[in-house]
Amino acid sequence: MSILIENVLHEGDRTNIYVEGNKITDIGPKVEADQIIDGSNHAVLPGLVNTHTHAAMTLFRGYADDMLLQEWLRDKIRPLESKFVPEDIYWGTRLACLEMIRSGTTCFNDMYFHLDQQAKAVEESGIRGVLSEGFVDFFQPDLSEELLKQSTDIIRKVQIMGCDRITPALGPHAIYTVTESSLRRFKEISDEEGLLIHFHLSETQEEVENCRKAHGKSPVGYLKDIGFLGSNLIAAHSVWLDESEIAMLADAHVKVSHNPVSNMKLAVGGALPYKEMRQAGINVSLGTDGTASNNNLDMFESMKFAALLQKFSTNDPTVLPAGDVLEMTTAKGAEALGIDAGVVKVGKLADLILVDLRSPAFNPNHDLTSNLVYSANGSCVDTVICDGKVLMRDGHVEGEEEVIERAAGAAQDLVRRGQE
Amino acid sequence: MSILIENVLHEGDRTNIYVEGNKITDIGPKVEADQIIDGSNHAVLPGLVNTHTHAAMTLFRGYADDMLLQEWLRDKIRPLESKFVPEDIYWGTRLACLEMIRSGTTCFNDMYFHLDQQAKAVEESGIRGVLSEGFVDFFQPDLSEELLKQSTDIIRKVQIMGCDRITPALGPHAIYTVTESSLRRFKEISDEEGLLIHFHLSETQEEVENCRKAHGKSPVGYLKDIGFLGSNLIAAHSVWLDESEIAMLADAHVKVSHNPVSNMKLAVGGALPYKEMRQAGINVSLGTDGTASNNNLDMFESMKFAALLQKFSTNDPTVLPAGDVLEMTTAKGAEALGIDAGVVKVGKLADLILVDLRSPAFNPNHDLTSNLVYSANGSCVDTVICDGKVLMRDGHVEGEEEVIERAAGAAQDLVRRGQE
Repeated sequence: MSILIENVLHEGDRTNIYVEGNKITDIGPKVEADQIIDGSNHAVLPGLVNTHTHAAMTLFRGYADDMLLQEWLRDKIRPLESKFVPEDIYWGTRLACLEMIRSGTTCFNDMYFHLDQQAKAVEESGIRGVLSEGFVDFFQPDLSEELLKQSTDIIRKVQIMGCDRITPALGPHAIYTVTESSLRRFKEISDEEGLLIHFHLSETQEEVENCRKAHGKSPVGYLKDIGFLGSNLIAAHSVWLDESEIAMLADAHVKVSHNPVSNMKLAVGGALPYKEMRQAGINVSLGTDGTASNNNLDMFESMKFAALLQKFSTNDPTVLPAGDVLEMTTAKGAEALGIDAGVVKVGKLADLILVDLRSPAFNPNHDLTSNLVYSANGSCVDTVICDGKVLMRDGHVEGEEEVIERAAGAAQDLVRRGQE
Repeated sequence: MSILIENVLHEGDRTNIYVEGNKITDIGPKVEADQIIDGSNHAVLPGLVNTHTHAAMTLFRGYADDMLLQEWLRDKIRPLESKFVPEDIYWGTRLACLEMIRSGTTCFNDMYFHLDQQAKAVEESGIRGVLSEGFVDFFQPDLSEELLKQSTDIIRKVQIMGCDRITPALGPHAIYTVTESSLRRFKEISDEEGLLIHFHLSETQEEVENCRKAHGKSPVGYLKDIGFLGSNLIAAHSVWLDESEIAMLADAHVKVSHNPVSNMKLAVGGALPYKEMRQAGINVSLGTDGTASNNNLDMFESMKFAALLQKFSTNDPTVLPAGDVLEMTTAKGAEALGIDAGVVKVGKLADLILVDLRSPAFNPNHDLTSNLVYSANGSCVDTVICDGKVLMRDGHVEGEEEVIERAAGAAQDLVRRGQE
């Protein structure tokens, strides 16, 4: 199966992009292909990469907002989570995948429960995912051994599926929910099996204070001392860090996922120290977080929030310019997840999106990058290719009506069960 | 001409909305009408109100970002503004009106140059506008007399047009660009003729410091002492205010327009003191500011930024909940501009929008207000009625291709002239 995207805007010029199998195999010549896509009103971009989310939480979209973090978790989110059945995870993840495809995301880093259901939804959606089972032992060593076994068992199950687009990963939740021995064990498994670790780091000031009380050191200091840091670690949030912690993350080649919308909505009280991280050479990519704290998965929106939050919080409008934030959302994200995509180049995976330039958002077009980051939103995407297959064409995704209906039904049922 | 919107979601129930002439004349019964709009997949909302923008600056979209404020103005914006011809204002405003219609805004408060061109564009677009000629005398008394005459002459010209949807207003720019005698004169004209005053107030800390140096008092204190405050005043930005200034604004019934996206992008270093203003009973509405500092006119996006900026800057996720921000953007905006709209009620002006609920952004639908503010963006709007006339239907605005093409062409020409 081959695809030719004809006459499309790519890095300032009109060209043709040729896709064969799951790769970009040529850029320039107009050649025969099984499928022709007219790109004459479009620009081509690499598919966007969302490096931190909890996909199935789409079922909670708008269920609880404008609340204090602890009340929100205790009174709203956890009671519903306790009522989940595996099928809820499937439909919630299907809805998330649909939303991501519709807004130009072709790869995401997920952490939630029922990894096999996440994987089934991702396989069927055609998108690419790094998927992990969230691990929380609440410091009960008896529990953790059994849970660790479950975590690795379910990874085997997903590996047996043999879907190239799915990368299983490890999902120890955070230092305030996982015992030290489990964290050490996860790092060993990660090293032995070459698996990524998806983790929450220093999201709130309280987390940092509690860590200092419990361990007499900063969260990153503690993680360094137990040997947890490494290039396989993707640390979401990473808001409350001091200079020495940034240096430790850089030394260990830890990857950071920035989640500006969630951080602002939950009022974590600080912004990721982007300038310092950039200077230290840390890979910083972008995530939406789950829809319970965002409330969407639109990476275009998150790009604008990222850029503006940095400017606002540093009182400097030159920080995190549009080009940098677009790179965070494409090349840096792909690099963080170990995916050979994130740029439109011959030999790279054919994860591509087309944005329609015939709207006010792209006119005038003094600077396409600026328009993408500051003017557009996810609705500008009308065609999505992932792994060489067309997932959306002219704004339509096959079967989307059923996904929306079934997921909305599952959410309604869940709330009903929660009230029983 | 009559319109019936059938079976549409309105305040939690399905109903029918009947429009005759330019008013909502009935809600409930299904009656005969000249035009039937099927609302069965939609919710109806009042048209959104944007209380601070510079519409024609769409021509600068993406022309200069990520720069220090003074360099941005001196090196990029002002050189281009000096090359404007009246037709540029017309096409820039047409593009802005198109963008606003497409994203659900039916009324806006504008300040720019060539008021007659703004008015022509608004009249032809079908939207509603409060329009003012920006006034800047840079403290030259000789100049100010002539400019004041021009300002009032052009208002007469617009009044003679006799377009019900256009409300001319006065546009003295700010305390740092307009001499005291001119400000006093504007207030007199405002009182004599019942005209609104559109004004920039305390956007940056520098403005406040310079005012204290020049006048020995705060900007609001200065304006109070020269008799400038009043219920006809709409003060954009209003970021850097102390308690006593908030009290003075409340006493004088001044209206405030909050511009969160612009404030963050230009890094003004503070956020509007919303909680204190709300406690003082001030009407706070929402604006996008011009596209040179935003870079779009999407009020849905601005709603999310407003809510999240308040939570982030106060470190309290309960501040500015979704319902309040939606009210700012509808009822409060209409009240500020003296427009009998902003709510869907019998007797109100028929400024209405329909949002399509068949997208991931609105599913599940635990809470429509939350989905509107936190999940959706302007692309959810597919039908717009202003003053009883359909301006957009099923996502299409008549003549939009020409507007985009002509405005993009005008912007390109302008940049070319700027480089000559």
